Amino acid sequence: MSASVAPLRKLVLLGTGLIAGSFALALRRAGLVAQIVGVDCCEGNLQRALARSVIDVASLNAAAAVQGADLVFLGAPVGQMGKLMQAIAPHLTADCIVTDAGSTKQDVCELYRTHLAGHLAQCVPAHPIAGSAQSGAAAASDDLYQGRRLVLTPLPESSHVAVERVRALWQACGAEVCTMTAAEHDGIFAAISHTPQLLAYAYMNAVLDNPDAARCLDFAATGFRDFTRIAGSNPDMWRDIALANRCAILTELKQSAARIDELIALVESADGPGMRAFFERASVARNAWNMK
Amino acid sequence: MSASVAPLRKLVLLGTGLIAGSFALALRRAGLVAQIVGVDCCEGNLQRALARSVIDVASLNAAAAVQGADLVFLGAPVGQMGKLMQAIAPHLTADCIVTDAGSTKQDVCELYRTHLAGHLAQCVPAHPIAGSAQSGAAAASDDLYQGRRLVLTPLPESSHVAVERVRALWQACGAEVCTMTAAEHDGIFAAISHTPQLLAYAYMNAVLDNPDAARCLDFAATGFRDFTRIAGSNPDMWRDIALANRCAILTELKQSAARIDELIALVESADGPGMRAFFERASVARNAWNMK
Repeated sequence: MSASVAPLRKLVLLGTGLIAGSFALALRRAGLVAQIVGVDCCEGNLQRALARSVIDVASLNAAAAVQGADLVFLGAPVGQMGKLMQAIAPHLTADCIVTDAGSTKQDVCELYRTHLAGHLAQCVPAHPIAGSAQSGAAAASDDLYQGRRLVLTPLPESSHVAVERVRALWQACGAEVCTMTAAEHDGIFAAISHTPQLLAYAYMNAVLDNPDAARCLDFAATGFRDFTRIAGSNPDMWRDIALANRCAILTELKQSAARIDELIALVESADGPGMRAFFERASVARNAWNMK
Repeated sequence: MSASVAPLRKLVLLGTGLIAGSFALALRRAGLVAQIVGVDCCEGNLQRALARSVIDVASLNAAAAVQGADLVFLGAPVGQMGKLMQAIAPHLTADCIVTDAGSTKQDVCELYRTHLAGHLAQCVPAHPIAGSAQSGAAAASDDLYQGRRLVLTPLPESSHVAVERVRALWQACGAEVCTMTAAEHDGIFAAISHTPQLLAYAYMNAVLDNPDAARCLDFAATGFRDFTRIAGSNPDMWRDIALANRCAILTELKQSAARIDELIALVESADGPGMRAFFERASVARNAWNMK
């Protein structure tokens, strides 16, 4: 147990997938939680979470589950969060902290304001920058957050005590915690997460437009594999993110489109030195980059 | 030794990097070559090739080296191939086969026609679909081609005997050999190799255009890492490829640009169902794809 962090008596996970499940397992390993209750609309996932001891108690009823909780973790897709907040609002004890793992933050902050207006001091929006090719409780792991970033985007109303409590719990999971505004968060992630995702979908569709697409794909190799890996991601999740972060994504997408138009002009005019400068700027930056 | 393939007496590598060096090591392991001579303008690379027994003899003089060779392997960048062909043309014995590993094929076929016009029956253009994050003789490996594709794009003048000889040697290296026209090759690789490469450069430059680019990059994670991996590639090599395969690349790049414009319109109009369909078409195809 981390000496300076008081343990949770009752943690409630709303959604028991990879992200929530890994948070639970990491807190359990740190000795920082007495009881974990999991709520999920997918019974199969709930059973796997029980079987792997990700949770101690399974429930299909969020309102009943949160009674007496000292931390509620919203680990469901952003599209379901509003409904969940609405359901739990009347049943939260006054000091129960509510946090989430949504990958867009301005829209989630809006949801807190709408559905938990009387409870905002205890609400701490957050986004763990971690994932895995696998999903679900079956893939949850107590070291998913080890050395990974966790972004807090506190509301103006969030109490210092609540923010520091959430920070300490994530640090106990091994995460490196930083704080910014929800708008900053959404701008940064539009640039380095949402836009490459949409470009990968667009490129994949362009390949499929070829009359001999199947033959082309037959010869695709490691460069294609890595460039398009994210194009295999869940369409529902990304539609939600694209809708939630529309403005920032449009800015970034248009910036990429402008650069592609510039490149088309360079290729059209067979401008070797221009291409070389264009490619070199990118390759120098990419080779200098290291993942945190 | 592969029972049905006659060994080479003298193999000459023009360029002793990863691709040529791995070809040499694989043939040596198969017992299919008596002597390997390496020619490189980079003396350091030549010394590493000697030290690792990739080659038996090092030379700085292509014209002198090819004398008495029964196979010449052009493993240098496409931009240097014309000069090399010109240098070796007067010194090839009549039955010496000349092949290459250029990643564009229509332009290399043109070079064969220009510089080895009297020797076309023995010329067999080829492209091994393999690579590594490392380069140079130091990274050469005898199993680089194991299970990988090798595309032959014979000239109308290439003799059947020469084509079958090159095919058998590559098969002995573990490669799966297929044959197509140079134009087919260049169209396919524009779609699944050259265009993603240029899109990755363009996206990387778009990120760098952000006033807070350094902060954005600081939060970039695994999706960004894989999507931009190829943006770290050599700018000179890719300028040469973009110039060599301009027309096919322009067609594919414009197809991607059109799809990105379509996507911008979908995001602008907050068209959730339209986005979902767009994303799903891509993700279904990507998840169905398997690398050969």
